[in-house]
Formats: sequence, C-alpha cells, structure tokens
Amino acid sequence: MSLQSEALQTIPARQGKAVRIAKDQQIRVINTHGAQVLDTWAVSAADTREYMSMEHTRSINSRWAIQTGLVFVSTRRRPMLTVIADTTPGAHDTLLCACSIEIYRELGVTGYHDNCEDNLHAALRDAGLTLPVTPAPLNLFMNIPIDADGSIRREPPSSRPGDAITFRAEMDLWMIFSACPQDITIINGAERKPTDAHFSRSAIPA
Amino acid sequence: MSLQSEALQTIPARQGKAVRIAKDQQIRVINTHGAQVLDTWAVSAADTREYMSMEHTRSINSRWAIQTGLVFVSTRRRPMLTVIADTTPGAHDTLLCACSIEIYRELGVTGYHDNCEDNLHAALRDAGLTLPVTPAPLNLFMNIPIDADGSIRREPPSSRPGDAITFRAEMDLWMIFSACPQDITIINGAERKPTDAHFSRSAIPA
Repeated sequence: MSLQSEALQTIPARQGKAVRIAKDQQIRVINTHGAQVLDTWAVSAADTREYMSMEHTRSINSRWAIQTGLVFVSTRRRPMLTVIADTTPGAHDTLLCACSIEIYRELGVTGYHDNCEDNLHAALRDAGLTLPVTPAPLNLFMNIPIDADGSIRREPPSSRPGDAITFRAEMDLWMIFSACPQDITIINGAERKPTDAHFSRSAIPA
Repeated sequence: MSLQSEALQTIPARQGKAVRIAKDQQIRVINTHGAQVLDTWAVSAADTREYMSMEHTRSINSRWAIQTGLVFVSTRRRPMLTVIADTTPGAHDTLLCACSIEIYRELGVTGYHDNCEDNLHAALRDAGLTLPVTPAPLNLFMNIPIDADGSIRREPPSSRPGDAITFRAEMDLWMIFSACPQDITIINGAERKPTDAHFSRSAIPA
C-alpha cells in the first residue's frame, strides 16, 4: 500500500460495516487475529440494484475458487473488484450463504443471535442504503474444501494473524463487511471466539 | 407417477413457464430430446419474498452437487422441493448464473437474444408475480464438472432423450422453468439447437 493509505479501520467483532471505495482505489482487508471470517458484499454506488454476484463471477471466470487476478463482477456482468494480492493460503468461499437467524435456530439458539444477514442490512441502513434481498456473500478467509463426491466440508480458517487480501475497485462502490458472529461451529477457528478485523484504503486516485 | 397425473405439458424451446404446485404434489420434468438445459426457480406461493436459494441449499445439505433425497430450501431455510427420482447420470448445476442479455453481448450478439433471465421475469409476469432480482437458478440437466484446481468446465448435457427428474413440493409454490435459448455454446448439446421440454404433475393431494 502507498504511504497515503489511511490508518487502520476496525470491523468490530460480530458486527457489520459499510465502506465507500472509489474507482481505482485499493482496500487491504486484514485478518488481524488470523481466524475471523468476513462475509463480504459489494454494491454499486450509482445504483444499488447492481451488486456483486457470486454466480456471475463463477461464470465469467469459469472458476469456483478465488486467485490473484480474479475479477468479481456484478449482476450486470460489470467488473467491481479485482484481487490484486493475497497473503493467505487462498481459502475463501463463494458457495455458502451468510449466517442468518434461522441457522442459529437450527443450531439450538432460542433467543436472538448476531448474524451476518442482519449485520449486512444494519450496515446498509447506517450508510443510507437498502437492498430487497441478501445477496450470496463472498466469504473471505472461510475455509470450505469441496470434494469430488459432491460434498462440502467446513474447516477453521487457514489464514494466519495479519494475513490480508487486497482488492482494487473497478467502479465507485460500497463494500459491506460482517465479522461473522458464528461462535457455535469452528468456522471462526477452534476457539469459537469471533474477533475484530481491520482494513485500510489507499488514497483516492486523483 | 400415479394414474392421476396430468397430460404432458410443454415448456416451449427458448421460452419460460411458471407452474403452480401444491404441497405434496409431485412434478416430473422430462428432457424430451435429451440435451436441453432448464434453468429452474421456485417461489413460495404465500410470499414471493421467500424463494429457492442455491447458497442455502448447498449450506444445509453440505453439498454442491445434487442427488436423490436432496432437499432444496428457501432463503428462510424452509424445505421447498425434494428430489425423489432422477433417471439422468446426475449432472445438474447449482453454481452458475442464468444467461442474460449481457452474456450474449460478450458472445458477440448485437441485437436481442432470448435469455433465461428475461424468460424468468416474463413467466412471472404471466402468473401475476414479480421478483426484484434474478435469483441464482438450479440449472437442470446442465453439465458443469468442477476441478480440484478451482476451475469449472462446460460440457453438453449427459442426459438422454426422455430422462427425467422428479420433485415433491414441500410447500405451496410456483416453479418457473426456462428452456435455455443458448445456441452459441454447446451447453444445450453439440448441435446448438434449443428444444422443447415437458413436465407432468401428479394429482393434487386430497
């Protein structure tokens, strides 16, 4: 990142945050403690009806897995985010839904439980935005090996403290992060302890 | 199917069709000519804000591939459709988007081209329904092998003429089919010739 990068910003444990990013600006997303999944969405700043699509991204790249250089596209097939660096071993998920209150019910929770779906919509509201649906998320740092027999496994993140993935924005957009509050399964690490994560944006290009 | 099944209904080549199905009713979806992909959606009859979700279905089944017995769930994690029989070799896709006008632009088409996204919304309109988005489809008979290196391939359907997949509805719902109009790639077979497909519903349970 350039010397003009902003100070580290916090994505608080169990919470969501909407972040404005200009075209050509970069954002470095840091797994500060190493085992925190970040459910991630992107929405066009010009028109919230256009948002980042996992199914169009898999289609246009002919890939189900992420790698450096991969371009995430919108529901209208326009480039939104390019992966320009990734210090993790590469485990990120594009296949699974955000956690929601129904999932915590399935896990036996009877009262309210923080969840990525509600975090998305709360963060959008804070930014003055709304979406009529919960799009399929990009689950940064989430380790979901898939098997040839058609099954999916859930493993703790393979990232280490300080590992980061860096994106360049290809249009003016909002990114929305949710520091996943899952504390029942081992998806946020064997300690089942959701933590803060951080990000830093480069200066807005002139 | 029982003797009470209706006569075969047609899903016309290149077009969409919305079909009402009652809880516990069965529908047999037939690849009449063997190589036709059907993009497929399901929407709750009680509330169109609840619709079939590929990302929740992969999550709740811990599977990216389909098999007999698999239950497709909604955005609210409720069962919508159960696969009760499948005479194909099993190749159906849950990973890729519906084709849209932008995809035909990428393929060099300059004028209008029929596409599954527009077919979905036209079929919904004919049924008096609307959706604010195009959900990720279940692509019946679409043959998308996935590789351990993270890539996805596109192959012609492996189904044979008359192969069929049968579902039981787990709630009152609409199914929407689009006989995919893709005639540039080999996704609907090497002949690149979209065809009709058919379905038949069992009697509505008493």
